Amino acid sequence: MEIYLDNAATTPVRPEVMAAMKPYFSKKYGNPSSMHRQGLLASSAISDSRENISKILNCDIKEIIFTSGGTESVNLAIKGVALAKGKGHIITQKTEHHAVLKSCEWLEKKGFAVTYLDVDEFGLINPNDVKNAIRKDTVLVTVMYANNEIGTIQPISEIGKMCKEMGVLFHTDACQAAGYLNLDIERLNTDLMTLNGSKIYGPKGVGILFVKKGIKIESLLHGGGQESGLRSGTENVPSIVGLASALEIAQKEKASENKKLSGLRDKFIFELLKIPDTRLNGHPVKRLSNNVNISCSGVEGESILLKLNELGIFASTGSACSAKDIKPSHVLLAIGLSHELAHGSIRFSLGRNTAEKDIDYVLKVLPNIISELRGMSPIK
Amino acid sequence: MEIYLDNAATTPVRPEVMAAMKPYFSKKYGNPSSMHRQGLLASSAISDSRENISKILNCDIKEIIFTSGGTESVNLAIKGVALAKGKGHIITQKTEHHAVLKSCEWLEKKGFAVTYLDVDEFGLINPNDVKNAIRKDTVLVTVMYANNEIGTIQPISEIGKMCKEMGVLFHTDACQAAGYLNLDIERLNTDLMTLNGSKIYGPKGVGILFVKKGIKIESLLHGGGQESGLRSGTENVPSIVGLASALEIAQKEKASENKKLSGLRDKFIFELLKIPDTRLNGHPVKRLSNNVNISCSGVEGESILLKLNELGIFASTGSACSAKDIKPSHVLLAIGLSHELAHGSIRFSLGRNTAEKDIDYVLKVLPNIISELRGMSPIK
Repeated sequence: MEIYLDNAATTPVRPEVMAAMKPYFSKKYGNPSSMHRQGLLASSAISDSRENISKILNCDIKEIIFTSGGTESVNLAIKGVALAKGKGHIITQKTEHHAVLKSCEWLEKKGFAVTYLDVDEFGLINPNDVKNAIRKDTVLVTVMYANNEIGTIQPISEIGKMCKEMGVLFHTDACQAAGYLNLDIERLNTDLMTLNGSKIYGPKGVGILFVKKGIKIESLLHGGGQESGLRSGTENVPSIVGLASALEIAQKEKASENKKLSGLRDKFIFELLKIPDTRLNGHPVKRLSNNVNISCSGVEGESILLKLNELGIFASTGSACSAKDIKPSHVLLAIGLSHELAHGSIRFSLGRNTAEKDIDYVLKVLPNIISELRGMSPIK
Repeated sequence: MEIYLDNAATTPVRPEVMAAMKPYFSKKYGNPSSMHRQGLLASSAISDSRENISKILNCDIKEIIFTSGGTESVNLAIKGVALAKGKGHIITQKTEHHAVLKSCEWLEKKGFAVTYLDVDEFGLINPNDVKNAIRKDTVLVTVMYANNEIGTIQPISEIGKMCKEMGVLFHTDACQAAGYLNLDIERLNTDLMTLNGSKIYGPKGVGILFVKKGIKIESLLHGGGQESGLRSGTENVPSIVGLASALEIAQKEKASENKKLSGLRDKFIFELLKIPDTRLNGHPVKRLSNNVNISCSGVEGESILLKLNELGIFASTGSACSAKDIKPSHVLLAIGLSHELAHGSIRFSLGRNTAEKDIDYVLKVLPNIISELRGMSPIK
């Protein structure tokens, strides 16, 4: 038996997406830059994908840059804007994904100034804090749409509106939000937005950077000049087709998935909090419908994970995106958890394959695992 | 009917590679950084791939960095070495792929000095020219293994040996060579080497950078710290598995493919040169077994392509990697062709699916196409 509750780490490619990708591996395999029929099949597949995505984002086709994933899109957005400006100040916040934080740290070494704003106990950023942090030389504000560890949804639209009024560019990392929240860039007031395939039942290794027309960004990968000169390299045709397909299906199913998952999530949280000395991490309401993150005092999250793994239940201690880091989650520390409690945390991220019986099974076994581990633990 | 003679632009994914990749899309779909069974399946698939590739390259597993393709690997090699040094001088040559040339141009803007060495009429670089160009502040020599347009094979091993003696790092772009030439990094004397999947019947969107132990390179994509911190981003598991599989099969079939293809190539060239006013581009002997590149005076290569395309024959005017460029090929200009003759060039790149009857068919129709176009042409 396998109960996969780690959908925020990555998702399986869904059958419809696999079917959409399949012809582009071995039958329509051309290089989109080639002038012959095989090349045209590939380039029109990319055009169609771009057009379908532009409808979901409510943007122009020329505003979509295909990349190799969320990390590359985030790097391109942040470094791209900064390097095009040459110098200046960037505003972000402490619970961002490492792709954002490490890009900002790199820019600090190159002479840029970066403000890392605090969040409240739920992981929320205050738009007024962003406003107050803006300086004359601020070139970019970057705040994630929804957090990958605790699911907190940031007030992106307000932050974006305020940035627009202040004349500062705004980027949001929407990787975790894509399957669940509105992606209309006009409503969100974003100038740049990062999306990827591997969290929405699409393929790994492919992403999108939306860049509003007229914004200058410096390319990170130079070469053949693909993607309007902003991202060189032969286009990954099957993955681009797969990403477009995954995003289209996610868009159609968003409402029903949110309804189903938020019901499961709320039941799950309600029951989990009956376990003694547990607390919910993240906002109780402004929260992704698939995210459950709890801390249990007196126990290691990693030990819980291993016990669950033995039973075929797959969860996470935080972000799987940060290659086997043993430091406590920077997100949990940012919302005020002690190191000990941060280490005692576990994330369950539900998905389209999650059934109520899966949740019921976890609820059946987890209290015993925790009490057993607490019995063994030196931390008391 | 389809006769695909554009294998240097990209190749179809072969069935064995597709079969190797398949389980990693929807069954073994975990994030390699996850601690549960699905994560371990993914991370061991990457370990196995890395180990198999390291045997072919005769290097340590820690010396292999997976990237999103040839362009990213080249950018990471050249910019990575240069940025880690901070300043200095780079040596390359004029027939490199745009990924190399544009990376070097970008570094020039950042204050680095670059020498672009000339090649001879066959596209060959003289190792002595490299030696003479080395300065005290030279940080990197980058010379491609085999040219993508004219197939000329460079004296990599000699250049690498000389660089080693002079204490300068040496990178080679081996994307076109991978299916046909020896990849043993000890024999080649390379410190860094770029490979990708899409020219060897593997997937698009995945590449390798070999980086010899102890060499400092600056990462281009920051985030979760995957690939020993040198290339962040969730690993593209299916594509990495596919690349390893493609490289393994290519290695096994190298000798037989070279034998078959060089026979076809030589017959093809011999017959093509019977067409009046044609010449072979590239070296007659130091040449990839799958490359045929000819120039026909008094005719546009693009017009030949379109006529061939109508008959289901797919070829190229030069590099398909340079998104629909209308400038004449920099490679053909570098070997001394006039603009007119460069525009009258066409590349046929053979592959594992090429049969003798395909070549015979092209040889049957091409002379008529050329004489018909010459009859219509204003260039006489």
